[in-house]
Amino acid sequence: MSKIIYVAIGNEILIGKTINTNESFIGMQLTSAGLPLGISMTIKDDKKMILKTLGHCWEHYDVVIVSGGLGPTHDDVTKYAIAEFFKKKLIFNNSAWSAIKKMYEAKNVPIPEIVRTQAEIPQGFTALPNKTGTAPGLYFTENNKHFFALPGVPSEMKNMFVYHVFPKLKRTLSVNPIYQKTIRTIGIPESTIFTKTIDVKETSITKIAFLPKSGMVDIRVYGTSEQEVKEIINRLLENIPPKNIYGFDDDTIVETFHKKMVTSGKTVSAAESCTGGLIQSLITDNAGSSDYFLGGVVSYSNEAKMNLLGVKETTLEKFGAVSEETVREMVYGVQKLMGSDYAIAVSGIAGPGGGTENKPVGLVYIGTFGKSGIVIKKNNLSGSRLEVKNKTALTALFQLDV
Amino acid sequence: MSKIIYVAIGNEILIGKTINTNESFIGMQLTSAGLPLGISMTIKDDKKMILKTLGHCWEHYDVVIVSGGLGPTHDDVTKYAIAEFFKKKLIFNNSAWSAIKKMYEAKNVPIPEIVRTQAEIPQGFTALPNKTGTAPGLYFTENNKHFFALPGVPSEMKNMFVYHVFPKLKRTLSVNPIYQKTIRTIGIPESTIFTKTIDVKETSITKIAFLPKSGMVDIRVYGTSEQEVKEIINRLLENIPPKNIYGFDDDTIVETFHKKMVTSGKTVSAAESCTGGLIQSLITDNAGSSDYFLGGVVSYSNEAKMNLLGVKETTLEKFGAVSEETVREMVYGVQKLMGSDYAIAVSGIAGPGGGTENKPVGLVYIGTFGKSGIVIKKNNLSGSRLEVKNKTALTALFQLDV
Repeated sequence: MSKIIYVAIGNEILIGKTINTNESFIGMQLTSAGLPLGISMTIKDDKKMILKTLGHCWEHYDVVIVSGGLGPTHDDVTKYAIAEFFKKKLIFNNSAWSAIKKMYEAKNVPIPEIVRTQAEIPQGFTALPNKTGTAPGLYFTENNKHFFALPGVPSEMKNMFVYHVFPKLKRTLSVNPIYQKTIRTIGIPESTIFTKTIDVKETSITKIAFLPKSGMVDIRVYGTSEQEVKEIINRLLENIPPKNIYGFDDDTIVETFHKKMVTSGKTVSAAESCTGGLIQSLITDNAGSSDYFLGGVVSYSNEAKMNLLGVKETTLEKFGAVSEETVREMVYGVQKLMGSDYAIAVSGIAGPGGGTENKPVGLVYIGTFGKSGIVIKKNNLSGSRLEVKNKTALTALFQLDV
Repeated sequence: MSKIIYVAIGNEILIGKTINTNESFIGMQLTSAGLPLGISMTIKDDKKMILKTLGHCWEHYDVVIVSGGLGPTHDDVTKYAIAEFFKKKLIFNNSAWSAIKKMYEAKNVPIPEIVRTQAEIPQGFTALPNKTGTAPGLYFTENNKHFFALPGVPSEMKNMFVYHVFPKLKRTLSVNPIYQKTIRTIGIPESTIFTKTIDVKETSITKIAFLPKSGMVDIRVYGTSEQEVKEIINRLLENIPPKNIYGFDDDTIVETFHKKMVTSGKTVSAAESCTGGLIQSLITDNAGSSDYFLGGVVSYSNEAKMNLLGVKETTLEKFGAVSEETVREMVYGVQKLMGSDYAIAVSGIAGPGGGTENKPVGLVYIGTFGKSGIVIKKNNLSGSRLEVKNKTALTALFQLDV
């Protein structure tokens, strides 16, 4: 199996001004072809550091992909380091220059003198066309090893990777496809899933990974045998409560909710207290949500709960705003107010203040009126204020039976 | 100067399922203290690979920070690799165990047996408290070298970094302070700011960086002379329109809005169409927003605009839902409905569909009723549906004069 390394060259990542999204993009692309990204690094825009890193990479890896530092300004040193490392002269490349000129002509902008150096390519290298920027990529191969230098700007890198790097790699490397399937869960801790599925074992060629993230856990099974991946997924499904599974692979709760609502032909509305509008904002992140989402209310104050939703003063006094009873009246209230088929209502304590012994931070009541009538559930959610908001919103969208 | 390396341990990054946001967070934190992150790596959850990497790092760096793989399941091997590398036994740590128990008790969930291993710490290591998760962090120091192992989940890592890693590093390492100041603007293009400030030049030790992001531009000035940074900032401020400046350094529009509202003693409500609840969700991201935020309406449908907010049918027919006239009635409507002092209302076309020649995607009317009465502004915003939503919400919060 070929050994692949990716090196991001960029101070802006190391000083925290930019998040390195190229890394996971390249990882995902390679994984989809069964090519594993073994390791990834981020180093400074520093010629000495680049030379040292290239030395290590070209010795130990079959495929070396670097990105960043190919631009025309004084802090772009990648190309010069590459030329020095491979002991190649920089040669003016006419077809690269034509492509750069075309890009400026299309924008109706005169070409700055400084850009001319962009058309210089180390001898023996191939220039990879850049669809959305001026810096061409660089490709070199020798002794069955492959070297790529790509721009750091994500849109330029991605285009070049998909159209010029990926096809070359797929053509030349022996590919060992990886099959994978992910079960996506909500509302069940990682340790509980682990305990429930303890009898489902990995094999030498099929692995199981637990990936927790903000109240949700993905269980990913991957390996070289499609059959084994399927079998293990099925055994896991026998042991994970279906009520905690919201989807597979790239499914998200928000998109799944959207698809189900569109199919149902029903309408929905929402009344939010502790989520403060987040549920409705997530719903309306979906283009086309106006077909079923009528709107709703952020009833942050008790007055709003009474005046807009018709929650009774006695209910608020007797049970409090964060209670099953109040949420029940909120569900029916918003359903009536908006004239929707279905409805969602939440009330809880997002924190960090406002908690009591009986009603701690993270206590949230979620009420939904769906296909089979009203359901109200009590939740104890952990995390920061924003995490409680987020978990509540996703749990609510998941709870509505459409 | 100390050499610092960060190593993310996580297959999920290398296969592209997760974007490594920890890297730039750590880079930013270190940079702010004048500590440079020299290099960063991502490696697999593989014990052999971790051992090899630890060997390299502990030999060549003064500070080694790793994250990921501290959880309780079988694919979490980081702690075992660390214990093996440093030749330390794992010892059950009572205070770590108490913290874990507390977390489960707070959630009212029984502790799974498997979690007990989380309280085992390599001998001679310090357990770093985890505020939002169960896996404690690990700290070890020897011969003026520092080793940290942190959870991979960003919220857990960040909390632990800020409260337990950062203070230790600042106390023990020699720091070379960098002064920096950032001017934060909204509603003015990068090229316009650049032209307006063309006469303000960098010096050899003080740099100016323009950082555009989603309709907002930060202008960051940094260098080793506090005096020079101040002077350049002052010259920039003379040339940037004050109406486009929403704050400095870490100020955000949402927090600035919050502080002004708290100080004002006034109340506010909101009526949202194209933002679908996002404005109210951002307001309620602030703990304590219930003191001034009464709630509001997501009037996604025309019926909601009429029935809840009293927008006239003739207004909708004559001018359309996305118009100055409709937004004006929405502002007054929600102000009356909620009985608030101030009010915000927006209506626009978030896209990608729904645009026409006269009313293209990105056309948004933002109405606010603040200290000096009603203001309605027309905006043409660019970007995806989510970007238009986000820009609209932030522009609206900035527009309200409190």
